[in-house]
Amino acid sequence: MDKIYMDHIAGAPMLPEVFDAMVPYFKENFGNPSSIHSAGEEAENAITEAREKVASLIGALGQNIIFTSCGTESNNLALKGVALAYKNKGNHVIMSPIEHFSNMHGAKALAKLGFDVTMLSVDGHGMIDPDEVREAIKPETILVSIIHANPEVGTIQDLSEIGKVTKEADVVFHTDAVCLVGAIPVDVDELNVDLLSLAANMFYGPKGAAALYVRKGVRLEPLLDGGIQERGKRAGTENVPAIVGMGVAAEIAGKEMESRIKHVTTLRDRLIKELPEKMGDTLLLGHPQKRLPGNVSIAVNYIEGESMLLFLDMEGIQVASGSACISRSLKVSHVMLAMGIDHAVAQGSVLMTLGKDNTNQDVDKVIATLPPIVQRLRDMSPLYHKKKNQ
Amino acid sequence: MDKIYMDHIAGAPMLPEVFDAMVPYFKENFGNPSSIHSAGEEAENAITEAREKVASLIGALGQNIIFTSCGTESNNLALKGVALAYKNKGNHVIMSPIEHFSNMHGAKALAKLGFDVTMLSVDGHGMIDPDEVREAIKPETILVSIIHANPEVGTIQDLSEIGKVTKEADVVFHTDAVCLVGAIPVDVDELNVDLLSLAANMFYGPKGAAALYVRKGVRLEPLLDGGIQERGKRAGTENVPAIVGMGVAAEIAGKEMESRIKHVTTLRDRLIKELPEKMGDTLLLGHPQKRLPGNVSIAVNYIEGESMLLFLDMEGIQVASGSACISRSLKVSHVMLAMGIDHAVAQGSVLMTLGKDNTNQDVDKVIATLPPIVQRLRDMSPLYHKKKNQ
Repeated sequence: MDKIYMDHIAGAPMLPEVFDAMVPYFKENFGNPSSIHSAGEEAENAITEAREKVASLIGALGQNIIFTSCGTESNNLALKGVALAYKNKGNHVIMSPIEHFSNMHGAKALAKLGFDVTMLSVDGHGMIDPDEVREAIKPETILVSIIHANPEVGTIQDLSEIGKVTKEADVVFHTDAVCLVGAIPVDVDELNVDLLSLAANMFYGPKGAAALYVRKGVRLEPLLDGGIQERGKRAGTENVPAIVGMGVAAEIAGKEMESRIKHVTTLRDRLIKELPEKMGDTLLLGHPQKRLPGNVSIAVNYIEGESMLLFLDMEGIQVASGSACISRSLKVSHVMLAMGIDHAVAQGSVLMTLGKDNTNQDVDKVIATLPPIVQRLRDMSPLYHKKKNQ
Repeated sequence: MDKIYMDHIAGAPMLPEVFDAMVPYFKENFGNPSSIHSAGEEAENAITEAREKVASLIGALGQNIIFTSCGTESNNLALKGVALAYKNKGNHVIMSPIEHFSNMHGAKALAKLGFDVTMLSVDGHGMIDPDEVREAIKPETILVSIIHANPEVGTIQDLSEIGKVTKEADVVFHTDAVCLVGAIPVDVDELNVDLLSLAANMFYGPKGAAALYVRKGVRLEPLLDGGIQERGKRAGTENVPAIVGMGVAAEIAGKEMESRIKHVTTLRDRLIKELPEKMGDTLLLGHPQKRLPGNVSIAVNYIEGESMLLFLDMEGIQVASGSACISRSLKVSHVMLAMGIDHAVAQGSVLMTLGKDNTNQDVDKVIATLPPIVQRLRDMSPLYHKKKNQ
């Protein structure tokens, strides 16, 4: 049975071109970029080239890119790095309540260190009001961190407007753009952001390579102390093959972006329209228009997301319920609760994240497969019977 | 011209078996271990298997292994993670003055956070006296961190004896064993260590995969907050291919260890004996017996290490001078200064780190090539002339 994979936000297949570019750095070019001899120089040059390619995807310069090992590390470096570097200026940090776990738990770690964290609110679509950011800023505020696109519900924030507010107030502005960079065009200047997290495996690059963009002049304490790699901001022997792969993936993402967006959006819109028609009693999660091209997040009333997911898996369809990081913890999503979605409804969420290789046939199969599964589960659900008999 | 590579401590070629094991996780098995569906489960199982293999190399259990992205991260996690977890017990940390940069600069970061760091002394061979550790321990001491084998001079500490001291005093004991694990047998129980850092690229595994062993019962604050990966001690999507590669490399290192040690030690001993005979006025750095099998670290009087290195590179021989992390910073090694080696002598160090694929012919070539280079450099050195004319 051919599998249908619709969990790209958790992990995406790597492009063959990316793999091919990495291979020489596993085999003959295994030097350490910090070594002075020629093998070291080759590795160093490869990293410089990748840095330019990654920078170019977000309208930045190579010198403002710090390579890290994953999106979580980028977020931790941004959050803790800025907080510790600016702690003499103040101890107040502003965040959204729909951040990825790495930022959310990073904020808890900051609170332990004595920082004061204000959580903004979001509306029913998961949108943040720039005016609320303006009102939340105090003289002690040193950092605003807001996720660009939420992985679970796909909502894309209007960062440019929020960035105007932080710029005016002279407060450092970070965004976790891990789910979004590579999927839609990003320009750090247009967004008015000072720091931006991105990860290669979100755009068909390898696991193990991610980056943090840091605007010139923004101070940052390193999270990993040690050697002088990454201008002293991230010590540790560079993962050369993964960084090279990230560069190639970024380059291709830039070139193919327009066609990928068109393709994936078409599939997404079919699922968003046809699934609710067939299943009834559903709720589209996230913003109807301002959402990631590949994101289908639907709450199916009266049943549990995990059951849908496991039944779909038996039919060879791989999807998620909430983010991958939350999946195994089996908790209700903090994102949905923040959006004011009822606890029971949130538990019935199914999350499909589409990729460039998904086809119309994949969508046909999901539309043919999921509604009967839902009906079967609802037939077993006491809540559903109660509702039907009302 | 075939290159002769003798900088294995900076970067080693990956085993073909390791590459082959990684490939499927770049291609078909790209799932996220945190996903509930079958693709996630496959990735999760692969990590579990790798964890057992890595644990087995150091006499530990899989459940005590935390995967990280590099040796520097393992050291930072150990140092900062333990310090923050035990800060209510005390604020005193004891270290050696010959730590890798990651531990040395990690200690500076701890000092900034209010911790008090005692630096031990070492003798001329870079050895630490266990009695000095005993005397340095105070009621406020929460951590002792001592490097197992130093990468620049190859000296191997008698950790077992130091571990007895820390055990008796009930103080957590960490070792940076990055340069040593995979090269000689290691057993965490025999060494009496509570935490141990290791990295895959030191034993022909991939860059981007490393680990920290943490004994059951030892508390640790995470460095990267976020998802529930690695039992909540290291958030971030796992670098599955690299972790799988580390597992295979660990397994093979265990099997081939004896023959690798024998081969590499023979080559090392030829270089250590024959080079000084041909060059004169040299000093073997590090301990004559208690040293890494592949480590040749020699100070050549009256000249600079960097010049030797560049001339050797032109002849196709790739070596180092000091550690890779220090190379590009062009500073004199803190390790050699701590060992009481004169500043001028330390600058003339050449570091050859041998690997399993080096041959007797490689050694012949180095012995034929380096002494004339040294002679040429000395002929240009005013210091050398002054000495000759004395």
